[in-house]
Order: sequence, then structure tokens, then C-alpha cells
Amino acid sequence: MKPRIVEVREGILRKNDVLARELRERFRSSRLGVVSLVSSPGAGKTALLERTLSALKDTKRVAALVGDLATDNDARRLERAGVPVRQITTGTVCHLEAQMVAQALDGWDLEALDLLFVENVGNLVCPASYDLGEDLRVVLMSVTEGEDKPLKYPTIFNSADLAIITKADLAEAAGFRRDEARRSIEAVRPGLEVLETSARTGQGMDRWLERLASLPVSRH
Amino acid sequence: MKPRIVEVREGILRKNDVLARELRERFRSSRLGVVSLVSSPGAGKTALLERTLSALKDTKRVAALVGDLATDNDARRLERAGVPVRQITTGTVCHLEAQMVAQALDGWDLEALDLLFVENVGNLVCPASYDLGEDLRVVLMSVTEGEDKPLKYPTIFNSADLAIITKADLAEAAGFRRDEARRSIEAVRPGLEVLETSARTGQGMDRWLERLASLPVSRH
Repeated sequence: MKPRIVEVREGILRKNDVLARELRERFRSSRLGVVSLVSSPGAGKTALLERTLSALKDTKRVAALVGDLATDNDARRLERAGVPVRQITTGTVCHLEAQMVAQALDGWDLEALDLLFVENVGNLVCPASYDLGEDLRVVLMSVTEGEDKPLKYPTIFNSADLAIITKADLAEAAGFRRDEARRSIEAVRPGLEVLETSARTGQGMDRWLERLASLPVSRH
Repeated sequence: MKPRIVEVREGILRKNDVLARELRERFRSSRLGVVSLVSSPGAGKTALLERTLSALKDTKRVAALVGDLATDNDARRLERAGVPVRQITTGTVCHLEAQMVAQALDGWDLEALDLLFVENVGNLVCPASYDLGEDLRVVLMSVTEGEDKPLKYPTIFNSADLAIITKADLAEAAGFRRDEARRSIEAVRPGLEVLETSARTGQGMDRWLERLASLPVSRH
């Protein structure tokens, strides 16, 4: 039975890669920067996004797609920032696929946007293999999750372009060992850029916003 | 393509259910109580287990299996409690299956044990549908994860027999809203028993150990 599953899975991934390439082309030709966020459930993707959208909305045209198995809680939270938001509910599927992103964008004028954030389903395994056509894939881990998460979930850290250590305001209370976390990241993805933020206090937001300022990537 | 995937998936689940039933029979005839733990990555399964194994080892014959995609960090942590522990590394698979549990138990004399803990891969989606033959399935959520996790991941909360809210020592620092978390759990699984623990301070451990004292379930 195993070979058959692998074969079906590879078919799905190939199909996703083709769609993701098409999406990436659309994003590029619309000069739209796309940033995706992946993490465990509860690592703080939505909290970071809330703060990010609020900070950017006066200077950039920003929007967001948010994935969840159930509920539109996150879309409703993000809408409070006053920017366009759409929820993708995946049912039992533990990741977003390029197809879901394409469908959620239906009817949106991408030329009228500068930056699109895509918040994946909270999962450190499933989203790793699915390209969504993004320019920047950000993996988040909170200071309360344990410093060895990168070692335990190497694939998702390997697929990321940037790591953000979140909930920095809880670092002391949680007894967070910064050096050990950095070493874990470095072990699975040498050279990966790491930022540290607190969406609650605003710590580290300036560096994160600076990082976003380079998007969309220049076409020249 | 979709029907084919569904069909393959159902085949896997059926096969798992048959194996899980066989496991459950083996556990019962050996008078072995089996407790599985599921949660997000970093919710504190291993920390709770460390403390639990240490507390129980002088009065019960306990052992543990721990699942992870990569590393044997958790097995090494738990071995410090001085009880038998085996690591199951799943590679890219985001859950344990009955087959993996059966294989990991190979050579163990189940009659010589009273309680076996099975720590699943950190994931709030994938493990939901896989019966491992356990008597008690415990879902953990930490006070730092967000009070609406049960609403977003209803299936896994639905499949559980007990919920534990972990890292209670961080509740205040994290601004944890207890009532809202309880309401979320109640909404997806009315009547589910909920405990609150801190593996760091020991808070709530007495009630948890009391709950475990009823295992293995009497055969009469």
C-alpha cells in the first residue's frame, strides 16, 4: 500500500508546485510582495500580523489571507486593523495549498496591493512541502515552546527564509534559553536570519518592519 | 484525484483501527493502563511526563513511548526518571499509528508494567483520527497558546477523554483568560473533564495523579 500513497502524494505536490509557480508569476507581474507565516498553533502568528497590519496600513496597501481548520476568528481579529482580510477554512486539511490561495484571491485586484500576508494553518509539519508562491516564508516559534523545536521539526525550519522568536516579553518568566534556541536553528538551517519580537510590547517590531520594507522584491 | 486520496486514506484508517483493537486487547489482557498525550508542539507533554513518571515510579511500574519526527531528545529527557522509555521517530509522518506503537513494544513484557504513557508527535491535527489502543487520551493546551485553540482544532479535542491546561505558572504573565478557554473546550466537547497543571511548580499534579490512579481500568 505504501508505494501507492507516496505516488498520490507526489502527484499532489507536483500539481501544487505548478500552481505555486503560476501564483508567483502573478504576484511578480502585479508587483505584490507576499509573506507567509508558519508555526505551531498558538505561537502568535495572528498577534504578530495584527500589529504588523496596523503599523503598515498607512504607508502600504496591505491585505491578509488566514488559514484555519475551523472558525473565522483570525479573520475577524485581523479585520479590526481595517485592511482587506479573507479566511480560508480547510476542514480537516492541516496546511494551505497554492490552489486555496488562488481561490481566496478570486476577485481581488492584486495591482491595488503592495503586500499580502498569508497565515498558514498552525502546524509544524504539514505546511513544509507546500509552496504558496510567497517571496518570504517566515517560521515563528515562541519562547514558551521549548528551545529544541527546530531540531524536532527540521523540515519546516529548512523551508523558511526567516525565523521569528515570538512572545519575547515572556522569555524571562518561561526561562527561555536564547543561546540554545539559536543553536537549534543554526543546526538545521545554518545562516537563517532570526528576529525576536513581542507583539504585546512591540519589542523587535522595528527590525521586522524594516525587513518587510524590502518587499516586493525589485523586478529589475 | 480527490476520491482516490480519500479511498487510500480510509484504507489506512481502517487498517489502523483493526491494529488498535488488537493492541487494546493485548493491553487489557496484560492489565496495562495506557495513556496517550496529544498537543501542539511545545505545549509541555514531555515536561508533564517527566514529573508524572518521577512521581509514580516508586509505586507503579511505568514506562513511556515518545513520538517525534526527528531526534531522541524526549526519550533522553524521560530516561532520567529511571523508567523504561523508547523513542519512535516518524520521519515526515505527523502522528503515531497503532502499527508504530506495536513495533515499539516489541520485546517488552507488558505483564511487568502497570502504566504506559504514549506521547504523540506535537500536532493538533494529524493524530486525531488514529486510535492507538489507549484507555485515556489526554489533550494538552498551554496557557500561552490562545484560548480559542479548541474551536480551531475541534477534532482533536473531540477525540480526547481529558483536557489538561498546562504551564499554569505562566497564566498571569500570559494574560490567560481561563473562562474563555473553558468555554471553548465546552463548545467543542461538552462535559470534557479539564485539569490545570504546572509541571514546573507542581500545581495540579495531585489531581492528575489521582486521575491516573483509576488505571488500568478494572476488567470485571
